Amino acid sequence: MLKKVRIVGSGLIGTSIALALSARGVAVEIRDIDPGAEALANDLAGGANLAEVELVIFALPTPALPLVIESEFSLNPNATFMDVGSVKCEPIVHVEESSLPMAQFVPTHPMAGREIGGAHGARGDLFATRSWILTPTPECAPSSLALVEELIALTGASAHYLSAHEHDQAVAAISHLPQIASSLLGVSLGQTPVQWLELSGAGLRDTTRIAASDPLLWSQIIYSNRDEIGRQLAGMHKELGDLLESLDQPEKIAEFIKRGATSRARIPGKHGGKAREYTFLPIVIDDKPGQLAAIFNECAKIEVNVEDLTIEHSPGQLNALITLALSASDAQSLSDHLSSIGWNVHPILK
Amino acid sequence: MLKKVRIVGSGLIGTSIALALSARGVAVEIRDIDPGAEALANDLAGGANLAEVELVIFALPTPALPLVIESEFSLNPNATFMDVGSVKCEPIVHVEESSLPMAQFVPTHPMAGREIGGAHGARGDLFATRSWILTPTPECAPSSLALVEELIALTGASAHYLSAHEHDQAVAAISHLPQIASSLLGVSLGQTPVQWLELSGAGLRDTTRIAASDPLLWSQIIYSNRDEIGRQLAGMHKELGDLLESLDQPEKIAEFIKRGATSRARIPGKHGGKAREYTFLPIVIDDKPGQLAAIFNECAKIEVNVEDLTIEHSPGQLNALITLALSASDAQSLSDHLSSIGWNVHPILK
Repeated sequence: MLKKVRIVGSGLIGTSIALALSARGVAVEIRDIDPGAEALANDLAGGANLAEVELVIFALPTPALPLVIESEFSLNPNATFMDVGSVKCEPIVHVEESSLPMAQFVPTHPMAGREIGGAHGARGDLFATRSWILTPTPECAPSSLALVEELIALTGASAHYLSAHEHDQAVAAISHLPQIASSLLGVSLGQTPVQWLELSGAGLRDTTRIAASDPLLWSQIIYSNRDEIGRQLAGMHKELGDLLESLDQPEKIAEFIKRGATSRARIPGKHGGKAREYTFLPIVIDDKPGQLAAIFNECAKIEVNVEDLTIEHSPGQLNALITLALSASDAQSLSDHLSSIGWNVHPILK
Repeated sequence: MLKKVRIVGSGLIGTSIALALSARGVAVEIRDIDPGAEALANDLAGGANLAEVELVIFALPTPALPLVIESEFSLNPNATFMDVGSVKCEPIVHVEESSLPMAQFVPTHPMAGREIGGAHGARGDLFATRSWILTPTPECAPSSLALVEELIALTGASAHYLSAHEHDQAVAAISHLPQIASSLLGVSLGQTPVQWLELSGAGLRDTTRIAASDPLLWSQIIYSNRDEIGRQLAGMHKELGDLLESLDQPEKIAEFIKRGATSRARIPGKHGGKAREYTFLPIVIDDKPGQLAAIFNECAKIEVNVEDLTIEHSPGQLNALITLALSASDAQSLSDHLSSIGWNVHPILK
């Protein structure tokens, strides 16, 4: 049973872990080079000075790891150590170059975050329902892993294993390149008049949503994984260059769009299952309180489960188009039911 | 009063316009080079042979326009003509090179579409709540414009005016580049193992959603606007090349991410108003029917208006995180209310 945990770094992740542990009766101590930030985080999470902790969590930017490893190891030479950085090869190199034995170190990456950093953005539920990746080296002791798995379970996350190199390739592909592509698209809008932006639909909004992310945090993440990102981004740059050369050849443009669609279709659906083909039911509603409630009431009444939902508003309109993602049979039942009681239901989309 | 409309092209847009007009008592006739497609579309929309129509709508790919202009003009020499292509400079050039007087031609672009093309995907409500852009030339007769505005109103869309060149620049920025960026990201996932894709979050899903679009349709759109897209895409290609050269300079990466965030923040919020800062309320729910209904019931009870909503599921979890976008005061009211009756409400995000 995990009893005492020391967290080095009072940022979003460190303080969120502290909040989650405190709420489950684990004693925590948060340390930070900034005394004010440290005091705030301990106040928020009920942290106190601890001796002989079982687990030390490095929750600080990976480039700062070498500054704290030796002192933390000498303070708690028998503890297990873990980090929570977004990139996993680099912290392993830092630990290998230190006195800390690899048997006592577990590299991890919680797949959770927010646009707002710092202790004031921390949330005890930040990790609930999320994946938390572990990338242990062959030297890692089973007892170290057990302790980290216990911590992950306490935060409400679920543990997944990868090698560090696989992890860094994976996050470059599923997280870092999407961030860069979204920011790139954001950058391209720099000179676009606002009255044009007003005409934009859900496509532009969706593709640029994560462009709003924190520049400092993301520059550290991208920098730490620059080798893998560089490799994958060079491929993307070449694809874009090839497309640019092919704009006068419709069949090459079609081939490009088609390859994107085919690859995109490989992203699995919810619950980690296979990619699911949802059926979509569009409904036009008045844009006022009570409309969504009424629709979901009808869903509950006939036991239809809504998998996802989008809401679209257009400039100057007082109604909205909501589109429910459902199983094919649920979509048919709900369409029949809502139509029969007078809702403005559109034909089902497959 | 619009009474008789001839639609040349039985695809998604043409048949959807026909459905919308038929439902409002306007007589329609759909023509297509493919007799089978023509028959299907007329069956669906109640089309019949018409003489002396007031309005002819070119609802076919822009490159095919020169093949039909002369015959359509000689058939109805006093009618008004409009097109519905996604690009507006090119059709104007085609009409200028024909016998059809510019006074009788209105170039337009309805901002609506679907992933599924063809008459079988057509929907009478396709244009409801959407913007419909008109890009008339100086020669355009007011009576022609009036007729087209009447048609737009009948479909439930709202009319917006731009010059053709502005339109093509605008759609390159807000629609064509996002499509290309999303497809590019999709292409980059071609070799990514599915077990890595399983770890992806809402970021990857959002940025690649429109990568699922129709390759043939999009190759025509991109090809027709290739000059403007080429200009803007060259800028994007250069930005990406610069970033690739700067991956070992964290401050340059930060500057890039920051520029993206700043420009993205310029996209206006709903109803065409200024960009609005919503407040977000996260709630963890059991992933089963009735949960969303219950929440929306409570929203209605205390008169809280939900502006937007996301639903996130994680691999292997049986609960889901829903995040409601609300005004700041509504978020506070709803958080207090739901907490008081036992919902798992997380702290408000600003």
